[in-house]
Amino acid sequence: MRFNQSLEALINNLKKLPGVGDKTALRYAMHLISINNDQSLQLAEAIKNAVDKHRNCSQCNTLTDIEPCCVCSQTGRDRRLLCVVESTSDVYLLENTNDYNGYYFVLGHLLSPIDGYGIEEIKLPQLLEKAAAEEVEEIILALNPSTEGETTINLIASEINKLNKRVTRLSTGLPFGGNIEYSSAVTLSNAIKRRYPITDSMS
Amino acid sequence: MRFNQSLEALINNLKKLPGVGDKTALRYAMHLISINNDQSLQLAEAIKNAVDKHRNCSQCNTLTDIEPCCVCSQTGRDRRLLCVVESTSDVYLLENTNDYNGYYFVLGHLLSPIDGYGIEEIKLPQLLEKAAAEEVEEIILALNPSTEGETTINLIASEINKLNKRVTRLSTGLPFGGNIEYSSAVTLSNAIKRRYPITDSMS
Repeated sequence: MRFNQSLEALINNLKKLPGVGDKTALRYAMHLISINNDQSLQLAEAIKNAVDKHRNCSQCNTLTDIEPCCVCSQTGRDRRLLCVVESTSDVYLLENTNDYNGYYFVLGHLLSPIDGYGIEEIKLPQLLEKAAAEEVEEIILALNPSTEGETTINLIASEINKLNKRVTRLSTGLPFGGNIEYSSAVTLSNAIKRRYPITDSMS
Repeated sequence: MRFNQSLEALINNLKKLPGVGDKTALRYAMHLISINNDQSLQLAEAIKNAVDKHRNCSQCNTLTDIEPCCVCSQTGRDRRLLCVVESTSDVYLLENTNDYNGYYFVLGHLLSPIDGYGIEEIKLPQLLEKAAAEEVEEIILALNPSTEGETTINLIASEINKLNKRVTRLSTGLPFGGNIEYSSAVTLSNAIKRRYPITDSMS
């Protein structure tokens, strides 16, 4: 049985969400047409509204509905720190840790020339200009420890080294609550190489 | 950091989708505001369109955009068979097997008085009326083998037995490609109780 046209259009559109395949899209679509209409229309409205309002912040490239974004417009933050992340959601995740009080720069993508993401696409010139500002002392590369992440980290680090500034990256090792038995060899290898004294005040 | 208002509204609406929690909703929302606007707006439009068009079929209760639905309006199907399912997506799944050629009846919910789904809510009177039709010879209860599913099956079966018609249910046993080692005791117990001769023509 073929789905009817409006249902098929809905399923196809839902499949464009990250990680959503045939079965999940069908499940979402059935839910949307089953529940009371108001709730589904509210979702449609919320999508339109959020999409209409969001732009990239001119200073840090975060997706925001105000210009500059709510981080860039805060004056009380530590201007010496600049944290480079892949996407806007990483900004939210880092903000939620309450352990970072500097500014951000969102690349938008990791470097991946094969997929068409080169130096211009990841906004490297804009980042270097920002990093070169006199007050910036440390650039933190908060990127995924994946192949593309490592490539991007290496490229950015080599460029920023030319500016004679401190470049750091997120610690690698066992995830909190993780299990040595189920850790990959690379994770365990990082954890042993980066072991630290128990008296270390950073804990 | 708090999400801005339009983003928070979008995340909250996405969290109403089945199985979507905070992280997935954030991921979907970020995707929707990151990709090109047209695609996101198409999703919003597809939701509105599908919700506007879908109603319950007056004959079988399937969610449909035509009345009667595309199964009920097919005349070539086997009128002797009536398959009772929980939801419209089950109709699509069974149709995709190409192994069923009768008609359907969608309950909408399984029986669960504690959650407010009683005999009226699962449309039992409407089902019994349909089952009582002279041409119907077999009622197949294609419901989940869960606690609520079993309760519903028992109730419907006892009512339909009064009509002196054949009531059947889906076979229980090992799922195809399943592994005896990882099967639950109940599954394995069903599989051994319902074992069948290898010469069985149904295979």
